Amino acid sequence: MRKFTIAPIACSELEQAAREKIDNLTKPKGSLGRLEELALQVCMIQQTLSPSLNNPYNLLFAADHGIVEEKVSASPKEITWQQISNFLHGGAGINFLCRQHGFRLEIIDAGVDYDLPYEKGIIDMKVRRGTRNFLHEDAMTPEEMNLCLERGAQCVDRIHAAGCNVVSFGEMGVGNTSASSLWMSCLTGIPLEQCVGAGSGLYGEAMTHKFRVLQQALQHFSGEHTVEEILCRFGGLEMMMAVGGMLRAAELRMVILVDGFIMTNCILAASRLCPDVLSYAVFGHQGDESGHKLLLDYLHARPLLNLSLRLGEGSGSVCAFPILDSAVRMLNEMDTFAHASITKYF
Amino acid sequence: MRKFTIAPIACSELEQAAREKIDNLTKPKGSLGRLEELALQVCMIQQTLSPSLNNPYNLLFAADHGIVEEKVSASPKEITWQQISNFLHGGAGINFLCRQHGFRLEIIDAGVDYDLPYEKGIIDMKVRRGTRNFLHEDAMTPEEMNLCLERGAQCVDRIHAAGCNVVSFGEMGVGNTSASSLWMSCLTGIPLEQCVGAGSGLYGEAMTHKFRVLQQALQHFSGEHTVEEILCRFGGLEMMMAVGGMLRAAELRMVILVDGFIMTNCILAASRLCPDVLSYAVFGHQGDESGHKLLLDYLHARPLLNLSLRLGEGSGSVCAFPILDSAVRMLNEMDTFAHASITKYF
Repeated sequence: MRKFTIAPIACSELEQAAREKIDNLTKPKGSLGRLEELALQVCMIQQTLSPSLNNPYNLLFAADHGIVEEKVSASPKEITWQQISNFLHGGAGINFLCRQHGFRLEIIDAGVDYDLPYEKGIIDMKVRRGTRNFLHEDAMTPEEMNLCLERGAQCVDRIHAAGCNVVSFGEMGVGNTSASSLWMSCLTGIPLEQCVGAGSGLYGEAMTHKFRVLQQALQHFSGEHTVEEILCRFGGLEMMMAVGGMLRAAELRMVILVDGFIMTNCILAASRLCPDVLSYAVFGHQGDESGHKLLLDYLHARPLLNLSLRLGEGSGSVCAFPILDSAVRMLNEMDTFAHASITKYF
Repeated sequence: MRKFTIAPIACSELEQAAREKIDNLTKPKGSLGRLEELALQVCMIQQTLSPSLNNPYNLLFAADHGIVEEKVSASPKEITWQQISNFLHGGAGINFLCRQHGFRLEIIDAGVDYDLPYEKGIIDMKVRRGTRNFLHEDAMTPEEMNLCLERGAQCVDRIHAAGCNVVSFGEMGVGNTSASSLWMSCLTGIPLEQCVGAGSGLYGEAMTHKFRVLQQALQHFSGEHTVEEILCRFGGLEMMMAVGGMLRAAELRMVILVDGFIMTNCILAASRLCPDVLSYAVFGHQGDESGHKLLLDYLHARPLLNLSLRLGEGSGSVCAFPILDSAVRMLNEMDTFAHASITKYF
C-alpha cells in the first residue's frame, strides 16, 4: 500500500516564539480567541512566524455507491452526475462559495457511474463505475483502495505544484453518508445507531429502512478486521481518494480544511493510517447529520462554524476559510504594543 | 426625546415567494441551513427577492466611563484614546478585519476624556469627556442621552447617503462591560451576578471587587425606573450613540450587524425603545463574557459565530460578515432545479 510520511508539527521553540508574537499584538491577551489558536497551528504547520495562505483549492471528489441499490438515500443515484454538470456550469452551492472566497474548484471523478464530459475540465481519476454493494461484498478491492490513495495524492501534488498550501476537501456521492456511518462505527466502536443520520433528507420509515440495511451490512461483516479491510468493505471511491489527498497534503505540510460528516470520516480514516495527519487539519463546520458531533468529539475537534449546513461539496470548509484567513492576517497585520506606544495592559 | 419609526419586516406574500425561491435552488431543501434563514431575513428587510449588501461600514463608537475611578477594569483608562490612535494607524484587530472584508471603518468620539486629533479622520461627536461615576450619580443627563441618540442617527444617515445598507456596530471604552452588565440586569431582570464578567481580563479578587462595586451601584439606584432612567443612570455615551445608530439603521431598512456583549446590550436597549429593531439585527458572535449567552437567549438570538473573541471594536460582527454575504450570494448566484435540468430530489 502507498506509504505516507507525515512529520509531527510540534516544536517547542517555535511554539514559544509564536505565542510571544501573538501576545504582543495590540489586544488583551487571548482576546482573539480561536483566531489565536489557529494562528499558532498555521505557524507550526508552515514552520514560520509569518505564515501565508496561498492559492486555496477545493478538491471535490465524486463517486457512486453500490449500496444505493438498497434504497438507503433520499436522492436518486443520477443526482451524482447531474450535480457534477451543475458544478461545471457554476450554479451549485460550492460554486458561489469558491468564487466568494477565492478558491479554485477541481471536480475529480473518482468513480462516478456515468460517462462524464472530461473535456469540460473534470479530472478523470475514475477507479471503477461506482463501488460494489457492501451489503453483500467488499465495496472495493485492496488494489482499488490503493489506486484511490495514489490518485488522491496525485491531485494534491498537482495543486501543490501550482502554489497551493491550503486545501479544502469536499465530496459528491449519493449514498456516502451510509458508507461514512459504517466507517465511523467500525473505526471508533461507537454503536451504529449513533452513527446513522438523515443524509440528504430521509425521515420516518425510509430512515428506519436505511438503518436496518446498514445494520445488516455490519452483521455480514462480523469478526475482527484491519483498518484496511474496514475501508475496503464500506468505503466510497471518492472517500478513499480524499483520504489519499489528505495524507499527501499533510506530507507536504499543507493546511487541510475538513468539511462535514463525510470528510470528517475521511480524516478519521487517514488518522488510522498516519495519526499525525490530524495536526494539519482545521475543521470547518459541524453539520446536523446525526453522528457528526459525536465523531468530532471523538477526534477532540472543534469546528469553526455551526450553521446547520448539510450540503457537502466542501461547502462547510470553504465557508470557514475567512476565519483561518483572519488568523493569518492577525499575525501579519496587527501592530505590537511597543511599536504602537500602547500601555501593555496585561 | 428623538423618536424613531421602524416598520415591521413581516410580509407573508414576500416571505412565501422568498421561501419558494430558496427551495428551488439546486440543493436538498434546507441543506444550506442558517444561510437560508439569513437570506430570508435580508429579503424581508430589503423587500426584494434579489437583495444586495452594499458599502458595509463598521461604526466604532468610543467613550470613557466615570465608573473606571472605582477600579472595575483590568485596563487603565488611557487605553481608550491609545487604541483610537492605533485604529488610525491601521494596526488594531478591527483594522485587519475591516480590510479583509471590505468594510469602511469610522471612529466616532462619543465621549472620550482626551483631546483627540480630529484632523486625522476621527468623527467628533463628543457629548462630554466621559460619563459621570454611576456609583454616585446618573452617568448622563436626559439631554446628553438624547444628544447621543441624535448623533448616532446622524452617523448612520451619513453612511446611508454614501450607499451603505449594512452596518456593523462596535465600541471602544474602558469600563463598558460594567455599564453593560447594569443595563442588562435592569432591563431584563436577570440577577446582577449572572450579568457580570471578566471584561478585558479580570480575575480573582479584582473580579470580586468589580462585582461588589456594581452591586453597590445597583443598590444606590433602587426602586422603579423607566427605561430612559436606566439608560441615563449607567449608560456609556458610546453605547447610547450606538443605540441611536441602530434605531436609525432600522428606520432606513439597513441590516444591523451586532457585535459582542456590549453591542448586544445596545440592541436590547434599542428594542426597549422600538421593539421592531430586532428584526433588522444579525448577531455576529457569541463571546465568552459571562452573561452574553444568557442575554442572547433572552433575545432569542442565535449568533453566527462562537470563536471566543472578547475584543469588541466590532471584531465579532465584521468577522461574521462573509456568512451574511454567502446567504445573499446563494440567492443571486445559485441555479434552479428547472434551469439546471436536475431531478428535484425532494
